[in-house]
Amino acid sequence: MSAPKLDPSTDVVELTRQLVDIESVSRNEQQIADAVEEVLRGHEHLEVIRRGHTIVARTNQGHAERVVIAGHLDTVPLNDNLPARLVDGLLWGLGSCDMKGGVAVALKLAVELPTPNRDVTWVFYEAEEIEARFNGLNLLTQSDPHLLAADFAILMEPSNAGVEAGCQGTMRVEVRTAGERAHSARSWMGHNAIHDAGEILARLNAHQPRQVEIDTLTYREGLNAVFISGGVAGNVIPDECVVTVNYRFAPDRTEADAEAFLREFFTGYDVRITDSAPGALPGLAIPAAAAFVERVDGPVNPKFGWTDVARFSALDIPAVNFGPGDPILAHKQDEHVPVEQIIRCEQVLRSWLSESTPSGRSEGEELS
Amino acid sequence: MSAPKLDPSTDVVELTRQLVDIESVSRNEQQIADAVEEVLRGHEHLEVIRRGHTIVARTNQGHAERVVIAGHLDTVPLNDNLPARLVDGLLWGLGSCDMKGGVAVALKLAVELPTPNRDVTWVFYEAEEIEARFNGLNLLTQSDPHLLAADFAILMEPSNAGVEAGCQGTMRVEVRTAGERAHSARSWMGHNAIHDAGEILARLNAHQPRQVEIDTLTYREGLNAVFISGGVAGNVIPDECVVTVNYRFAPDRTEADAEAFLREFFTGYDVRITDSAPGALPGLAIPAAAAFVERVDGPVNPKFGWTDVARFSALDIPAVNFGPGDPILAHKQDEHVPVEQIIRCEQVLRSWLSESTPSGRSEGEELS
Repeated sequence: MSAPKLDPSTDVVELTRQLVDIESVSRNEQQIADAVEEVLRGHEHLEVIRRGHTIVARTNQGHAERVVIAGHLDTVPLNDNLPARLVDGLLWGLGSCDMKGGVAVALKLAVELPTPNRDVTWVFYEAEEIEARFNGLNLLTQSDPHLLAADFAILMEPSNAGVEAGCQGTMRVEVRTAGERAHSARSWMGHNAIHDAGEILARLNAHQPRQVEIDTLTYREGLNAVFISGGVAGNVIPDECVVTVNYRFAPDRTEADAEAFLREFFTGYDVRITDSAPGALPGLAIPAAAAFVERVDGPVNPKFGWTDVARFSALDIPAVNFGPGDPILAHKQDEHVPVEQIIRCEQVLRSWLSESTPSGRSEGEELS
Repeated sequence: MSAPKLDPSTDVVELTRQLVDIESVSRNEQQIADAVEEVLRGHEHLEVIRRGHTIVARTNQGHAERVVIAGHLDTVPLNDNLPARLVDGLLWGLGSCDMKGGVAVALKLAVELPTPNRDVTWVFYEAEEIEARFNGLNLLTQSDPHLLAADFAILMEPSNAGVEAGCQGTMRVEVRTAGERAHSARSWMGHNAIHDAGEILARLNAHQPRQVEIDTLTYREGLNAVFISGGVAGNVIPDECVVTVNYRFAPDRTEADAEAFLREFFTGYDVRITDSAPGALPGLAIPAAAAFVERVDGPVNPKFGWTDVARFSALDIPAVNFGPGDPILAHKQDEHVPVEQIIRCEQVLRSWLSESTPSGRSEGEELS
């Protein structure tokens, strides 16, 4: 089989379809990264750098302002949902929503805008859907942070072609109770660890999650048991129960804040952190972000879920999510993306990168 | 390999060792049943009937009183605990405690007491350690209930060579909560079924188990969660939680009583019965039982766990547990039995079956 090709001169919907049809489940991004690199390499206005299956393409026009526009190339596992199908204005298939529509927009504009009004660092990266140690953007922040230097970043995660700003952090902890085994016919000889977990659930039930306003956006926290398990045998008093709790915290809290809150909340219990990622402040007050939001000209919403915008935030780069597709459909067997949202995202970005004077720290030209 | 043999003329401890060394994990009782049958067949005073790997040997001396003395031949699975070892007065090995010590006592007395003072139905049965549909005693109650007709029954389950009377019933139910899935970053879109299980655990925590006095024995009930499980993924609000509850109920309650209690207790929840077995009243007021208890001459305790005495109870035959070994050690890798308890059980039963006038409905002889 010959290597699959991408044709950036076709329309953005067809380009999305071509991208979807290159299967690229995490850790299998060789083909799609090769095809993307081949498209980008042919253009003098782009400096192309590859790290693993992550491709960076930069314009170097000397603008005072630089924006990163990024999207991941991988998808969650196949679920009998390839190849792509276009039906009644909806493009269906694995990765159509998360997030090859956004990748198509970025790839097309990368080659079609040789002289954008701000310098652009286009990033197409691998392994976003799996552990952070494989994540191409994460690896790049460690190996080549200078390649990501920018005033603002747009992550083309699905957000219904609107702006979803910042993101909430997430922390998972295991909260344990310990008891003592005994035969259940002589239960008074033991101590029931599952019964003790009742107090953990009572605290969760009584908790009122915070709602926090930041840059006019209202973030809503969540504190939820996502797993519970305990039990040894049908005739044994259980000696352990584990409640796994997921805390989604507003971006005014750091991971350290979140941990302190959880340890206080579960005072008296064994609490172990199993997983954590910081949130990202929306940063909408920054001129570049404000200008982009104005261009999108629609409601701005807070991002409740966690996305790689937090990695930009950790580099002090304000970032927003902006891409075609409904985030609710991500990772679903029947994921799909409205064609009109792909087209809208392309139009917004093309316009924002082409208008004669970018806002923010421009070179000072005046506009009529 | 030649078929293993049993020598009932040896002492009861050596006979126990011989029985332990015939591996007889449930569904593998052919050899041990053959060996037991061979021992019994050679004696004119015994009518021997075999059903599967269950052997019944009856005396038919025309006594007005008949007692069943029963023990199961099978064991739980091997756990690197064969062959038997005799160390410092303890016999170790799979089945030593549960319950080949008792089987040795019964087998030895069956052949050595040709003219017991009451007729005896000796029962050596298969498959007690697995599902009831394989249980030899259970099968016998269905196929040949007349073979079990008796005034009193002694089940030689381990009871530290004392009398443990009756047994408690056991019922398992699954108590379910239902919720609605959502991404945990948008938890307000769903409903957390694990959180709802908090109320189930709260009820269990608040419950004071009954203590019931019957025939001077105090039965202690237990109501315990033995399993809990719930959870879909680390970022999903769970839509189901299942708490498995084991109710151990005193023998003044029937299974119907137990079910009614549980349905009332868990009002508002989906309750499904997964497993149930009735208890057995101690029946110590019955003359044959009272006489046996007097002969044992030690404290009588209630049996908290469930045993096959309940099957006799269902046939309206009062029954007690009486056998060597600590029930706490049953099913343990390091199960063992004190030699002195085996010897004591043999002495008690031999004496009780040999004294010149049995109590109860005797033929009317007077004793000096």
